[in-house]
Amino acid sequence: MKITPEIINEFVAEAFPTAASTGFSCVETADGSATARLAYNEHNIRPGGIVPGPSVFAVADVALWYAVFTRIGLQPMAVTSDMTIHFLRPAIGASLLAKCSLTKVGKRLAHGEIRVWEEGGDPERLIAFASGAYALPD
Amino acid sequence: MKITPEIINEFVAEAFPTAASTGFSCVETADGSATARLAYNEHNIRPGGIVPGPSVFAVADVALWYAVFTRIGLQPMAVTSDMTIHFLRPAIGASLLAKCSLTKVGKRLAHGEIRVWEEGGDPERLIAFASGAYALPD
Amino acid sequence: MKITPEIINEFVAEAFPTAASTGFSCVETADGSATARLAYNEHNIRPGGIVPGPSVFAVADVALWYAVFTRIGLQPMAVTSDMTIHFLRPAIGASLLAKCSLTKVGKRLAHGEIRVWEEGGDPERLIAFASGAYALPD
Amino acid sequence: MKITPEIINEFVAEAFPTAASTGFSCVETADGSATARLAYNEHNIRPGGIVPGPSVFAVADVALWYAVFTRIGLQPMAVTSDMTIHFLRPAIGASLLAKCSLTKVGKRLAHGEIRVWEEGGDPERLIAFASGAYALPD
Repeated sequence: MKITPEIINEFVAEAFPTAASTGFSCVETADGSATARLAYNEHNIRPGGIVPGPSVFAVADVALWYAVFTRIGLQPMAVTSDMTIHFLRPAIGASLLAKCSLTKVGKRLAHGEIRVWEEGGDPERLIAFASGAYALPD
Repeated sequence: MKITPEIINEFVAEAFPTAASTGFSCVETADGSATARLAYNEHNIRPGGIVPGPSVFAVADVALWYAVFTRIGLQPMAVTSDMTIHFLRPAIGASLLAKCSLTKVGKRLAHGEIRVWEEGGDPERLIAFASGAYALPD
Repeated sequence: MKITPEIINEFVAEAFPTAASTGFSCVETADGSATARLAYNEHNIRPGGIVPGPSVFAVADVALWYAVFTRIGLQPMAVTSDMTIHFLRPAIGASLLAKCSLTKVGKRLAHGEIRVWEEGGDPERLIAFASGAYALPD
Repeated sequence: MKITPEIINEFVAEAFPTAASTGFSCVETADGSATARLAYNEHNIRPGGIVPGPSVFAVADVALWYAVFTRIGLQPMAVTSDMTIHFLRPAIGASLLAKCSLTKVGKRLAHGEIRVWEEGGDPERLIAFASGAYALPD
């Protein structure tokens, strides 16, 4: 089964009924990569319209989860093993896009790198860069 | 001025009026360290009562911010430069505590390590271990 | 001045007279990126011809240093601030190549991601993935 | 079998006959922790007597390996999965000590934090702080 954004969004909505309100969605998939979106939410910002760091982390984490789906199928639990994130610039008043490209899928761990930028902005002007590993089921 | 949990909680409530609803608070401070708490929120959990990874990251990030306060005073913006987190166990149905101990405060960066555990549980039974750097103001 | 591999190798040989024996060299540069090479050294291997993890780290670290040169000029000291490395596969009996692409050059820090693979092998078959920050001079 | 520094040093010397010349040794062990030493080597320094970053990484990596020994016995291969290191200060003209404390030993991964300081100096004045995971054998 080819994993499309529609399949992912439907799966997540059913598995996590409260997720619809969190603002995350999958907007693009390919073999070994996926792009997640976090809708701008004026109720969860810092002064000046800055998107909080943990929200930037969250969209990167979700992108890793979606990317893993494209290789091993839908997984009800997101089991991130570790994640390193560098915050490179503030995100101001914008929805975020996070693209994860898997760099390796092994027996136990999948590893990916994730770039986060502002929707509508230059994808090279990164808000954050993250990399991490996801623990695969036995 | 000695930075107490009360001072931090009052400062954060004024600086971020919406923060009260997010469930974060400071519960302990010392010179170069601080403990943050994230109240269990049944509206933000995964199946089985598991606290989401980004929430675990968030309480670690907040603890770093609070710990920096104890050395350089109250800072309106949390400016995490980078953070690495290892998720060691799921947190299930519990509030979280995150203690940050600063390992160095330099001219440009403060660095700390953060341990996260379940409130009421064994503080050695870690939910997550994080370390990261905070960009100090010029 | 355009920073070429020749300029970098000459500079490093003069600044660090012992470096010639360490096996590192720069083999490619572009604006914001550089590729470092670590020559296979049969005197510094693990059983089975495996290149030690710290040697893999070292070539990634050197690549970040070289890449910074392409943006701010030659710097006598390598001042890595932090580095995260995921070891994805063993490198066996081979020289290594490490390509660093800078993701941001700010006022205080430059951040890059680095991919390490075996010379002569598939550049997509990564030995390690690293990312880190370099502290820029005032 | 209780794992002592002597047992570790003998094991490493036999498993890696070239290791004696690298300057690493184990100087202390306890259940779940170990301290590694890297002897100062005037042939492997930067101008000013600064110990290179990759050498600091190496002693941290070795400390993680030794600490794992105290829980699962001697392992011929060091299989670090990931490591994050923050370089906090230069180490100048000194041997290094690195103490690793394991924070969790699971089925697949052991995780530890490592502090590096100058031998003879203040153990709280850190040269580097690292944390990482080690892939346990099946």
